[in-house]
Amino acid sequence: MTLAVRYIAARSLDTATTDNPPPGPGEVELAPAYVGICGTDLHIFHGDMDARVAAPAVIGHEMSGRIVRVGPDVTGWAPGDAVTVMPLRWDDVCPACTAGHRHICQHLDFIGIDSPGAMQQRWTVPATTLIRLPDSLPLDRAALVEPTAVAVHDVGRAGVREGERVVVVGGGPVGILIALVARAAGADVRVAELSAHRRALAEELGLATWDPAVDDVAELVREWTRDAGADVAFEVSGAAGGVNTAIEVLGVRGRLCLVAIHPRPREVNLHRFFWRELTLVGARLYDRSDFEKAVALVADGTVPAERLISKVVPLTEAPAAFEALEGGGDVMKILVDCTDDAQGAAV
Amino acid sequence: MTLAVRYIAARSLDTATTDNPPPGPGEVELAPAYVGICGTDLHIFHGDMDARVAAPAVIGHEMSGRIVRVGPDVTGWAPGDAVTVMPLRWDDVCPACTAGHRHICQHLDFIGIDSPGAMQQRWTVPATTLIRLPDSLPLDRAALVEPTAVAVHDVGRAGVREGERVVVVGGGPVGILIALVARAAGADVRVAELSAHRRALAEELGLATWDPAVDDVAELVREWTRDAGADVAFEVSGAAGGVNTAIEVLGVRGRLCLVAIHPRPREVNLHRFFWRELTLVGARLYDRSDFEKAVALVADGTVPAERLISKVVPLTEAPAAFEALEGGGDVMKILVDCTDDAQGAAV
Repeated sequence: MTLAVRYIAARSLDTATTDNPPPGPGEVELAPAYVGICGTDLHIFHGDMDARVAAPAVIGHEMSGRIVRVGPDVTGWAPGDAVTVMPLRWDDVCPACTAGHRHICQHLDFIGIDSPGAMQQRWTVPATTLIRLPDSLPLDRAALVEPTAVAVHDVGRAGVREGERVVVVGGGPVGILIALVARAAGADVRVAELSAHRRALAEELGLATWDPAVDDVAELVREWTRDAGADVAFEVSGAAGGVNTAIEVLGVRGRLCLVAIHPRPREVNLHRFFWRELTLVGARLYDRSDFEKAVALVADGTVPAERLISKVVPLTEAPAAFEALEGGGDVMKILVDCTDDAQGAAV
Repeated sequence: MTLAVRYIAARSLDTATTDNPPPGPGEVELAPAYVGICGTDLHIFHGDMDARVAAPAVIGHEMSGRIVRVGPDVTGWAPGDAVTVMPLRWDDVCPACTAGHRHICQHLDFIGIDSPGAMQQRWTVPATTLIRLPDSLPLDRAALVEPTAVAVHDVGRAGVREGERVVVVGGGPVGILIALVARAAGADVRVAELSAHRRALAEELGLATWDPAVDDVAELVREWTRDAGADVAFEVSGAAGGVNTAIEVLGVRGRLCLVAIHPRPREVNLHRFFWRELTLVGARLYDRSDFEKAVALVADGTVPAERLISKVVPLTEAPAAFEALEGGGDVMKILVDCTDDAQGAAV
């Protein structure tokens, strides 16, 4: 019997004991070590994704852990291997898959939303989703590989090149990771973020920041770029004002990479897209090459994942952590510790 | 003394006689033959562009004609040469120009809006704006080279490739030209257009059409593409509904090329950009290579320009033609005949 955190209904999580069956053909059973709480998990917690999440549902998809049991027909993996999971299952037959864009399969199963996730002590997944972690990489830091893969994908979609000037609108975990990955690509990066706590952390990481509540970001970008405007903007805030800022700061032929989810239509200044020949690029998830690059960036410290971890809580305290996150507060990333030791200490 | 059509104030044009001074250094004096009435000219007529147009102002920028006089320091051109004009003057020092995007110069002088245009019997322009026309190309057809250059630029910005499925939303002159240029690039093209007259003309040109007032365009695209969605959509309607349609029809990684001017912000389904990793590309004007390709397409009949010409009126009747166009009606392109013969006949 092992513990799992389950989504029950809007604003309600519980912990329950579960009994994990042996892995089937092509599957592996993992012992998750650390699972990050993601913005998407908060959307689920708020009840905004009930159409996709079949309660009671184990959620969580930013994880690190080790293999416990290997099912039939699985080769190349053994108990004890340190891994993370690219939580995607595609159908391989839809037009998106056949066009080579499997991560945006038209019938994608996102593991942790559409099927059971990682916030539990044992978790069975297809072996095809495994990404190997170097033994030298501590597993708490490795839980940041998944959001780092998001950032790698976004920076790739935006085509950030060395020497380009980049504005990241929204300095939460994904925004900061995008800023770090863009900087690693040689870009000159600024972060616009409302939270003083998050700005302070970004500054500690060497990223220059602006506060859109008091700074005229568009004007500051004009000064910074000598009236040229930024080459690239990332919209990671999810706010209507963030979209406007990201459009305003761009120079001629600038690229706006849309990362945040905007569930409702937004008023968009399309004239500016015409006038400056701007490009808007949607970016969603990642593919295996993004994950492998993310592992390397976290492992070599280019992405100092440990600096983004605000707090680590045992599984039993995860429901309270969701409630605390909902109130905002001065946090970046909270990890849920799923190891047996942590539960022993907590129970 | 020669005749000119002038914009006086909202909904008011007149004709006046003018006396054209000899061309200065680097300039040529042209005798415009035919000048097309463009959507932008109608915006000016409506009074929507008074911030840019200093009345009384001669407008018009879709033209063909012949050189009359050549100013000092102009080489390579002689009286009698058949030409069209790329009506752009850039400052060559702004960030857009230095980045190589001179057609979207941050201080662009668009000749015919920001400075005097072609709707007159004599017109002086910088020799750098001239584009040579083949002697074999009738000058009425050549007046369609400028909007064809727009279409060439748009199809290039969208990166249309052979075999791709393309939806053009809005079947006015630019929409039809985009459809023809995309077809010439090997694409399979559909045009969505409300006007029965314009749909009929598109069908005569071999373009399949839909009527968005009665057809469920998104559903028809799903059937046509076997649920894949279109590769490219062009928004040429300028309507809010057109933006929605162009987004809805696109498949995974589809590209939306924004051609129409939307003066006010539009509600845009950004979630769809995220979910399908769509790209929005703004497209404005053209460069010299677009113009040269446009000359070739009109000259070899790939773009059957003569089929798009609904009516030809002398200069003196241009004001009435603007009023008729404002009422909509069954027209595609109206040309103003600026030749001396036409005025003789009309006066």
